[in-house]
Amino acid sequence: MPKIVDHVKRREELSDATLRLLARSGLRAITTRSVAEEAGWSTGVVNHYFSSHHDLLIQALRRAVQRQTDYVRTVTRRAGDDPLERLRLMMQASLPLDERSVSLLRIFLIFYAEAGDNTEASEEVREYLSSWRRSVTRLIKAAQSAGQISADLEAVDLASDLIALADGLAIHAILDPDVLTRYEQRGTALLALLEGRWSLRVERTERVNTERRPRRPS
Amino acid sequence: MPKIVDHVKRREELSDATLRLLARSGLRAITTRSVAEEAGWSTGVVNHYFSSHHDLLIQALRRAVQRQTDYVRTVTRRAGDDPLERLRLMMQASLPLDERSVSLLRIFLIFYAEAGDNTEASEEVREYLSSWRRSVTRLIKAAQSAGQISADLEAVDLASDLIALADGLAIHAILDPDVLTRYEQRGTALLALLEGRWSLRVERTERVNTERRPRRPS
Repeated sequence: MPKIVDHVKRREELSDATLRLLARSGLRAITTRSVAEEAGWSTGVVNHYFSSHHDLLIQALRRAVQRQTDYVRTVTRRAGDDPLERLRLMMQASLPLDERSVSLLRIFLIFYAEAGDNTEASEEVREYLSSWRRSVTRLIKAAQSAGQISADLEAVDLASDLIALADGLAIHAILDPDVLTRYEQRGTALLALLEGRWSLRVERTERVNTERRPRRPS
Repeated sequence: MPKIVDHVKRREELSDATLRLLARSGLRAITTRSVAEEAGWSTGVVNHYFSSHHDLLIQALRRAVQRQTDYVRTVTRRAGDDPLERLRLMMQASLPLDERSVSLLRIFLIFYAEAGDNTEASEEVREYLSSWRRSVTRLIKAAQSAGQISADLEAVDLASDLIALADGLAIHAILDPDVLTRYEQRGTALLALLEGRWSLRVERTERVNTERRPRRPS
C-alpha cells in the first residue's frame, strides 16, 4: 500500500526548515541543498514542492505570516480585556527575540528589498501590513473606550506610527543588539506617552513654554 | 596628450546612475548593462570600477550615505537655532519623497536583507544608524535645553525610537502611498507628543485613570 503523503504538512515542514536557516544564518544560507538537509529530505523533494529559489522564499513568507498571526492571537488572548496590554504584547511579538520573530523579520526584509519590483510578493507584504494596521487601530479604539488613551487622538494615525515604530525597532535591533536591550528595559517612548506615564512631565514643560510663546488652540 | 580621468568623479557618476535606476525601477533593474546605459558609458567602464554586482551596490550604498549626510546638513542648517524644527526636518529627510530619498531607502533595504550574513556592508549600515542616532540624541538634548521637550525624558531612548519610527515609516511608505500621504498631512504622533501638542489631552485622560487605579510613582 503506498504511503499517504500530507502535501500541506510537508510543504510547511520545508518552509519551517527555510525559516530556521534564515533565523540562524541569514539569506546566503538558503539553498535547495541546505533546506533539504535541515528538513531531513532529499533535494528532489525540495524541488518537487518549490519551483525556484524565489518560490522557496515566497512560501517561507506565507508560512511566517501564518505562524506570526497564530502567535499574536494566542499571546494577546492571554491579556484578556486590557487593550493597552494587548497592544504592548502585539508590539513585543514583532521584536527579534526568538527563532519565530527573527525569521519573520528576515523574510520580510528580503521582500522589502524587492519593493519597487512590483512582484506578487510585494502585494502580499503590503496586505500583511494593512491587516496589522487594522488590528492595531481596533486595539487603540478599544483603549480609548477604556479611558487608557485620549479619545481625541486619531486611532488610524497612531496605528500607522505604532506599526512603523515596531517594524523599525525590530529592523534596527537585528542589526544592533543595544537597541533590543534598550527596548527590553523600558519599552517604547510612544507607548509610554500614549498611556500617559510621561504626560504629567510633558505637561509641566508645556506650562513653561506658555510663558514664552502663545499656546496653540486645542 | 592623454585625457586626465578623474576617477573619484567617474565612480560617483556611475554610483549616481545606479541610485537613479534603483529609485525608478528597483533592484531587478540593476545590471552592468543598465548602469552603463544610464551613465552613458560602456559596460567595460562599469566593470573597471566595480568588481562585482555586489560591489556596485556597496559603492551605491556609500554614495547614498554621503548624499544623505550632505543633504541633511544643508536642510537642518536652514532651520537655524530651533532644535525641534531641525529634528522634524531630519525626520522628513528620510521619507521617500524624491529620487535621493527613495534610492537611499532602497539601497538600505538591500543591505538590511543581508542582516545576519555579517558582511562588511552590514557593518557600514550599523555605523550609519549609530551616527544618525547620535545626531538625533544631540538635537533632543538641545530641544530639552530650549524647553521644547521635557528634560525628564531620556534623550537616547527617544532618539532610538525616533529613528526607528522614521525608518519604519519610510519603509512602509515605499510600499503603501497612503502612509506617505498621512505623514505629509500630520507629521508623526511621536513628534506631536514630544512637543506637547497632545499632552494636555493625554493629561486629561490620566486624570480619569487616576480614579480607577493607583497612579505609578513619577
